[in-house]
Amino acid sequence: MRVLYWDGHELSVDPSYPTPTAHSRIEDGGSRIVGATGSRPVNEGNLTALIKVHLAGICSTDLQIFKGYMGFKGVPGHEFVGTVSAGPRDMIGQRVVGEINFGCGDCDACRRDLSRHCPNRTVMGILNADGAFAEFVSVPAGNLYLVPESVSDEEAVFTEPLAAAFEILTQVQLNPGDEVLILGDGKLGNLCAQALRLTGAKVTALGKHADKLALIKKAGVRTIQLNDWQTRPFDVVVEATGSASGLDLALSAVRPRGTLILKSTIAGDHQLSLAPLVIHEINVIGSRCGPFPDALDALAAKQVSVTPLIEKIYSLSDGVEAVAHAAKPGARKILLRP
Amino acid sequence: MRVLYWDGHELSVDPSYPTPTAHSRIEDGGSRIVGATGSRPVNEGNLTALIKVHLAGICSTDLQIFKGYMGFKGVPGHEFVGTVSAGPRDMIGQRVVGEINFGCGDCDACRRDLSRHCPNRTVMGILNADGAFAEFVSVPAGNLYLVPESVSDEEAVFTEPLAAAFEILTQVQLNPGDEVLILGDGKLGNLCAQALRLTGAKVTALGKHADKLALIKKAGVRTIQLNDWQTRPFDVVVEATGSASGLDLALSAVRPRGTLILKSTIAGDHQLSLAPLVIHEINVIGSRCGPFPDALDALAAKQVSVTPLIEKIYSLSDGVEAVAHAAKPGARKILLRP
Repeated sequence: MRVLYWDGHELSVDPSYPTPTAHSRIEDGGSRIVGATGSRPVNEGNLTALIKVHLAGICSTDLQIFKGYMGFKGVPGHEFVGTVSAGPRDMIGQRVVGEINFGCGDCDACRRDLSRHCPNRTVMGILNADGAFAEFVSVPAGNLYLVPESVSDEEAVFTEPLAAAFEILTQVQLNPGDEVLILGDGKLGNLCAQALRLTGAKVTALGKHADKLALIKKAGVRTIQLNDWQTRPFDVVVEATGSASGLDLALSAVRPRGTLILKSTIAGDHQLSLAPLVIHEINVIGSRCGPFPDALDALAAKQVSVTPLIEKIYSLSDGVEAVAHAAKPGARKILLRP
Repeated sequence: MRVLYWDGHELSVDPSYPTPTAHSRIEDGGSRIVGATGSRPVNEGNLTALIKVHLAGICSTDLQIFKGYMGFKGVPGHEFVGTVSAGPRDMIGQRVVGEINFGCGDCDACRRDLSRHCPNRTVMGILNADGAFAEFVSVPAGNLYLVPESVSDEEAVFTEPLAAAFEILTQVQLNPGDEVLILGDGKLGNLCAQALRLTGAKVTALGKHADKLALIKKAGVRTIQLNDWQTRPFDVVVEATGSASGLDLALSAVRPRGTLILKSTIAGDHQLSLAPLVIHEINVIGSRCGPFPDALDALAAKQVSVTPLIEKIYSLSDGVEAVAHAAKPGARKILLRP
């Protein structure tokens, strides 16, 4: 099959990469996938499904990987929507998205329904598992969620990053009227702003790009151009710039005893002045992958608007060019269609 | 009066520093100081009391100040116990300790009972206010708490740092059985271990010094020598080493989605690798000054043991020598008696 392959130094299209296989232990179609939105994933240990990828999204984490993040080698890509082509019988033909952390199913974290933090996990396209920049991808059946019919492929491919935005709400109690600042007007900032706005909190997005801010504003969020920024205290600040440079500004905008959410995984070490953090008793919370059902619910209910974020859809054969495009400053979401 | 004076470069004893005065607007003795443990401070705006200092403690923050922290100049010292010698009439002759943040009384933070975070505050011996390494110190009457008779001066002088330890419990919900690691076997580590132990959490203290660990063990806390340390995950880790070097170890010992409490104010910037923080969704909480009533309660109930932490009591005239002693690696609490 055709894939985009990262050998640790160079990205290339490989037209003859071995197609993965599905492992289905249940021959009687007895897997327990339940309907659509709000569904729980099946949890059948080593069951895997083979997914024919419809669309895959290039994410900032992928671009970090091409700079050495995680030391990953293989097929990248962890944002996808596709159709089950092999695996548990009653999943075949279903349109699905998939949670990217593949837990061992056997440790403390997995037993507490936190396979996202399983110490033995592999992570699709990021850590010891091939990803979705490919014609087919293999995913544990328990990680899959059915996509409601009302959600298009172009919307569903945003489930993973949108879930990451909803993760914030599992970590911080937001109340109507709380002042929230989103730092960064990129894709992640946009999705975070839309997700947090649903709580009734007063969400403001701060960014550099007039066009991207306009997109966020269209979704009903107040926006401020960085040039017009005057520091004032917010209850919650979300760092979603994808670069280390936003950190100091973020910290300066958190009120004493307020919360700073770190959404960007940035490779390498960064200077963080810890004294202000202690003096102002700031709460810094790292935030990563999130709940797929919440994201699918919001997409199905049309509570968030994601397709305006799409910049261009490339064929997988043009994947190298697509990645170069995604890496351009100011680029919106680039999708790959295998 | 005699004080210890820091001019920004050198510490010296000044025998003829001007004695501060008390400001008492209430001539009829109408201030509202209420009894002992659990008392609320009076809250009378600009009322100040003049305290004759019985004992003052030298703290790591003081040692940081002598390295340039906060750019402070003046009389340092913020841990004290003394007797009111002038001020609101019914406080005169009372034995008191005092909260060190002097709020404006008029801002949002002050109105929310968070004068510790008042943006216009002065801080005793740290920021624009003279401190307690002096025969007399002036403190807003609203910051004072009566010391119960059963609490000795040698115990009461620990109220401020013990309150800082109890602050953790206002920020994190600890449950019986939670695994807590205290990093650092110094004074702050000792007090944190004793305070958190009262919740029923399983508290372990990790440190370098056999004698200090023995002291913590005596207080009923499990201890581990750094040489014997094998990383394992804790629900809550408290960084109380007072140095930046403990940060990486601290971060490595927090379980995914666990909490890291930063108790040390360390001057300067420090390398903190943020990627693990995001990947493991760690919650980092800065923690500073805390509730005096909780500390006085614990001292009065003999739930914590602080006097074994005293290394030596110096006369104020020997203050320069006392500070040099306090700065020696391994020194326990050095007190000054004016």
